[in-house]
Amino acid sequence: MPTVDIHTHMYPPLLMSLLRARQQIPYVRTFDARIGPRLIILPTEEASTSTAKGRPIGPAYFDISAKIAFMDRHGIDVSVLSLANPWLDWVASGEAAGVARGVNDDMEGMCAGFEGRLFFFGTLPLSASEEAVVGEVQRLKGLKHCRGVVMGTSGLGEGLDDAMLDALWRVLEEEGMVLFLHPHYGLPDEVYGPRKSEYGHVLPLAMGFPLETTIAVTRMLLSGVFDRFPKLQVLLAHSGGTLPFLAGRIESCIAHDAHLMKQAAAGGRRDVWDVLKKNIYLDAVVYSQLGLKAAIEASGKDRLMFGTDHPFFPPLEEEEEGGGEWLSVTSNVKAVRDAMGERKEDVDGILGGNAVRVLRLGV
Amino acid sequence: MPTVDIHTHMYPPLLMSLLRARQQIPYVRTFDARIGPRLIILPTEEASTSTAKGRPIGPAYFDISAKIAFMDRHGIDVSVLSLANPWLDWVASGEAAGVARGVNDDMEGMCAGFEGRLFFFGTLPLSASEEAVVGEVQRLKGLKHCRGVVMGTSGLGEGLDDAMLDALWRVLEEEGMVLFLHPHYGLPDEVYGPRKSEYGHVLPLAMGFPLETTIAVTRMLLSGVFDRFPKLQVLLAHSGGTLPFLAGRIESCIAHDAHLMKQAAAGGRRDVWDVLKKNIYLDAVVYSQLGLKAAIEASGKDRLMFGTDHPFFPPLEEEEEGGGEWLSVTSNVKAVRDAMGERKEDVDGILGGNAVRVLRLGV
Repeated sequence: MPTVDIHTHMYPPLLMSLLRARQQIPYVRTFDARIGPRLIILPTEEASTSTAKGRPIGPAYFDISAKIAFMDRHGIDVSVLSLANPWLDWVASGEAAGVARGVNDDMEGMCAGFEGRLFFFGTLPLSASEEAVVGEVQRLKGLKHCRGVVMGTSGLGEGLDDAMLDALWRVLEEEGMVLFLHPHYGLPDEVYGPRKSEYGHVLPLAMGFPLETTIAVTRMLLSGVFDRFPKLQVLLAHSGGTLPFLAGRIESCIAHDAHLMKQAAAGGRRDVWDVLKKNIYLDAVVYSQLGLKAAIEASGKDRLMFGTDHPFFPPLEEEEEGGGEWLSVTSNVKAVRDAMGERKEDVDGILGGNAVRVLRLGV
Repeated sequence: MPTVDIHTHMYPPLLMSLLRARQQIPYVRTFDARIGPRLIILPTEEASTSTAKGRPIGPAYFDISAKIAFMDRHGIDVSVLSLANPWLDWVASGEAAGVARGVNDDMEGMCAGFEGRLFFFGTLPLSASEEAVVGEVQRLKGLKHCRGVVMGTSGLGEGLDDAMLDALWRVLEEEGMVLFLHPHYGLPDEVYGPRKSEYGHVLPLAMGFPLETTIAVTRMLLSGVFDRFPKLQVLLAHSGGTLPFLAGRIESCIAHDAHLMKQAAAGGRRDVWDVLKKNIYLDAVVYSQLGLKAAIEASGKDRLMFGTDHPFFPPLEEEEEGGGEWLSVTSNVKAVRDAMGERKEDVDGILGGNAVRVLRLGV
């Protein structure tokens, strides 16, 4: 059974040239020639007064041969690429449809160069219009290596409980395309308190990202998206953020709200547990056996899929980056093996079999 | 083995009279005589234009005989009372020490009236000064029925990673008093999007509260509180918010931060898993078997303690409130029984045995 990485990011050539030309977030810029170019994708990174703000943007971010080398080093047979956050959320409305086509064609081209090893989730021109979004989904369906779409939590600008998105949910459901839902905006800085900067990116990345995902998918649930589109398939980044752990509390809060329960009685509401088992897939990017077990209990072992989040979370040591395996990868592989114990078939399923089946990778 | 509820709130008489006299949050007020008095404790509740804003504040909130009746109806032998949020965070600095003494003496008096059935967590005059806080902890230690202190996440105003709180951590550690950490402020409204009000209090209660707790305790961890005070004992509300599920991601983010790892190497940093198993207790207020199992895996079955969150989350039906058991209680009891299966000893431990041992209830 192949090992498949369904959470792995790339900035293809067209996007890199756009990022290099920009003067505001997201952008790539060389502040200090001795340090080299930096990628800034989060507003908090720009606030830093250090010349080393953001992160180094090496070939792992844009060179497909670096991705293949990373895969080979870690025994990853197949990768399902997705554009990294913030996707095309920042592109001007009039340009978004064209940029999306260009980026997706770049992705398709990269995949075609390594037949059988690469697939991708397409990117949507969300700042354009719902028509443009639907049109691009239909076009993506015709690309040989595309298996779904990736997007953030802002949708057309008002979140994923926006009724204007019904056109997108409908076409995804009709075309059998998986939606990979990924966080980007996190939570407002003030929630982390006055000493946030002393803790690096730990609080926004470890808490803001997972909560953003959890809030987004809960808004979909509360607004009835999964009632209207019962076959919509959503892959949640980072094992659902915190959805598995909070599912019970979400249901309890709904059950104690008279208004919501009256609506539910009228509309045949599906509860979070039903949605988790029929509509949600979870990646296995959770860095602990505990988290992985909870994710499995929430959605089922047939709905978990291994991922790396590459090229983010590189090792701290340069030498390690040059040669050994990445901790961010090995810790997630270990979590799968530890959680599943002797059940090799289940380990294989999470490390690759589920992705092959769900995403029709045919390898 | 007795059943013990360690998460159950009261507004004692002194506090009720203060709340009734106030004109801003938190306060008790009758907007409409036909509806009766309402309690407003969250800023978002005041924004409502409904005459029914906030929640009805019946005897369950302030009458100890209503608490005893609730306990009897649910087979709860012992309750460890705590003042509900937002405690005394809102009390003027100069008055806080006196109000804290009054409230705590009220609590002690209520417990003395039902010997063997009631204990309490004291409230701190956090808006006064660290000296006042330390003094009240020492005074509380001398009260027969006090077993610890309850507090929110703002500390002296700057969060729980404020070095000024070291005096509090020190005295709690020295006196062997448990800190019950409970959320109140949640997250800024904007994170829930433009349709938040359509979903009642679900998003702030199911997501904001747990995240507030998780961020607060992670800030304690990152600022080295548990390194400096290795015997500090903290009971986290709602099974730690989301700490069990996110622990792996927190550790991974720290392990990928060069600055934090350099600090850690110098200071002998304890990781989140070690702290979970030696410093953290979790209540069992998580409303799902999945959540309870994750909490047990995080801290160990000897560190979980049953709670109800009474008088919050009353049943929707008036009749049910008058007679039957509350769903918010039975769902948590069921989660314990389902998670522990046939292991009666473990069920008994979580439902009461652990609290008797940890809080020295001697019943």
